[in-house]
Amino acid sequence: MFRFTVTQWDSVTNARLGQMETSHGVVATPAFMPVATQGTVKATTPHELREVGAEIILSNSYHLYLRPGAPLIEQAGGLHRFMGWNGPILTDSGGYQVFSLKDLCRISEEGVQFRSHLDGSKHLLTPETVVRTQERLGVDIAMVLDECVSAPGSYEEAARARALTTRWAARARSAQRREDQVLFAIVQGGVFPDLREQSARELVGLDFPGYAVGGLSVGESPVVTHEVARHAVQFLPQERPRYLMGVGLPEQLVRYVALGFDMFDCVLPTRNARNGTLFTAAGKLNIRRAEYATDPRPIEEGCACYTCRHFSRAYLRHLAIAGEILSARLNTLHNLYFYQQLMRSMRTALAEGRFAEFAQPFLFSMNMEKNNEREQGWQI
Amino acid sequence: MFRFTVTQWDSVTNARLGQMETSHGVVATPAFMPVATQGTVKATTPHELREVGAEIILSNSYHLYLRPGAPLIEQAGGLHRFMGWNGPILTDSGGYQVFSLKDLCRISEEGVQFRSHLDGSKHLLTPETVVRTQERLGVDIAMVLDECVSAPGSYEEAARARALTTRWAARARSAQRREDQVLFAIVQGGVFPDLREQSARELVGLDFPGYAVGGLSVGESPVVTHEVARHAVQFLPQERPRYLMGVGLPEQLVRYVALGFDMFDCVLPTRNARNGTLFTAAGKLNIRRAEYATDPRPIEEGCACYTCRHFSRAYLRHLAIAGEILSARLNTLHNLYFYQQLMRSMRTALAEGRFAEFAQPFLFSMNMEKNNEREQGWQI
Repeated sequence: MFRFTVTQWDSVTNARLGQMETSHGVVATPAFMPVATQGTVKATTPHELREVGAEIILSNSYHLYLRPGAPLIEQAGGLHRFMGWNGPILTDSGGYQVFSLKDLCRISEEGVQFRSHLDGSKHLLTPETVVRTQERLGVDIAMVLDECVSAPGSYEEAARARALTTRWAARARSAQRREDQVLFAIVQGGVFPDLREQSARELVGLDFPGYAVGGLSVGESPVVTHEVARHAVQFLPQERPRYLMGVGLPEQLVRYVALGFDMFDCVLPTRNARNGTLFTAAGKLNIRRAEYATDPRPIEEGCACYTCRHFSRAYLRHLAIAGEILSARLNTLHNLYFYQQLMRSMRTALAEGRFAEFAQPFLFSMNMEKNNEREQGWQI
Repeated sequence: MFRFTVTQWDSVTNARLGQMETSHGVVATPAFMPVATQGTVKATTPHELREVGAEIILSNSYHLYLRPGAPLIEQAGGLHRFMGWNGPILTDSGGYQVFSLKDLCRISEEGVQFRSHLDGSKHLLTPETVVRTQERLGVDIAMVLDECVSAPGSYEEAARARALTTRWAARARSAQRREDQVLFAIVQGGVFPDLREQSARELVGLDFPGYAVGGLSVGESPVVTHEVARHAVQFLPQERPRYLMGVGLPEQLVRYVALGFDMFDCVLPTRNARNGTLFTAAGKLNIRRAEYATDPRPIEEGCACYTCRHFSRAYLRHLAIAGEILSARLNTLHNLYFYQQLMRSMRTALAEGRFAEFAQPFLFSMNMEKNNEREQGWQI
């Protein structure tokens, strides 16, 4: 089953409060999905994910396809059971991962041939096999195979990738068999407004239950990302969930919620945690710095995460410098909690009709960034 | 405060059931102490240690002295507060660690000079500074600085180390200031029965609240270890806790409890966990093996640990092969639970007057090993 309902609209921005019902439970939107690349959100247990407030997670069908393999996970009862997470799961199609391999992949109308980053073995992904893989995984939301071009790409390249992505999306739609899983389409078109519009219109014509904007944050300036996303989102239906892939920093989440996006995923909170970079309302801090060596305070005063309730910056610095596994664990819990808390704050602000006020400082800083980039000669 | 009480004696072996009251709580003995080398039992939180049933942990004053430093931990309110573990802590003196550095250390009557394994800086440990460091850490049980010789050592070397260890123990005893911390002495003497007896008698003469047998499992055969420990333990007072350092495998714990030892520590359960070796009643298994790829069973049927209650061997194998942090976490929880469960079983057997029966299979296999080694020409 799948149902998306917008329960409240912001009167100033395009932000909306909603809920997404899936076969494995309800997700309040806007939602941030922690990334479980290999079937585990690095350094955390499923119970901890619940505790930090995550309601849906993202996994990568590309990685799971290669290792341990979709048939193995299917035999184990599906990805939910395999990894012990009984809430909703969305899987990426692998398009982004395969195209990151560059020289190791070859695109044809049929699909994309690539060599495994693990053992060099040859594989072919097609729109149909990618749907099949995600159906075997048994996830709640599957993504279509798309072609992703890195920025700055030429107009011709972006146009070709957009067209192929649409044809592949149609094939994926027809290949779908499971009724307890929905398929989202992915808008492509590089940094070119007309291509993004065309991509969105074509995919909407195919009537997907949800839409993602992909191929962003792949090398272009953050201001360009923002402009492209702002342009693309207006061609997506209001009554369907809109997912901005691979974004992003906390302030970016606020800005994109203001544009009307409902779903996000990003490795930043987890990856940063493992190298000691922690998010706070006052900005990022690197716990490895000498200044924290004797600091008795938690990462952030008032934070209710497990880490902040029990450990000092001094101890966390010691763990990071000593290379202890507990460092990755405790830092990850804090960052994920910070992200979920930010989403909760946005949802509360939406429910209470004060989202614009909440978002104001973030939108203002965005305008400053735009002015800066204009002065530096960026095309916006 | 410190009080050790034997509450029950086994009628067949020398095993005893007891309890050790410390400034941070009571420990049921025989007890196994998970090892928190750098102020964290690798890959676990203090709450998880409680959950697996640990009542006391061991940390290394050598490692903490070098990083982050005892003054820093003292300033943070002591090691308990720094690492968030409010139960009893025992710290090793660093003798074993320093003597493992071999060429990097130089022994004199005063103490031992060595170069840090972290940055090559020069340090001097004396019996007095080692007591002072552990008092700054604020642990419940401190160990004296001892000289540890690796096996096979000459009689002369072992005799000299034994004598020095006794003189150092006397100095350490006089250096002690804190009343909420007790100091245990360490019996040395290599593999030589008369030296072990002499060491034990001298140290007992100094009237310590607890005694360890050290310098074992340093290269000699396990059967020799057993013979030396069996010989040494009889010269230690019945009414004081006896701690066998650095031991061991599950079956060894049973054998040494049968000899009358009350306390143990070992990195085996945690280190093995990180490389995928898991303990079960049926022996060890390596979760990385291909045979577990599709195995839906828990590590051990009936095991009540967090890992066995939630995850399959197939998933654990995937995590291990993929090099995920969660692999180290879940494996560690199982192994620590297994060890604590073994200690609980022994204590229950002691309480119910059936320890000899419980220990029988382990003692029998020990006799088999002895016969094997005799046949191979070992001196026993």
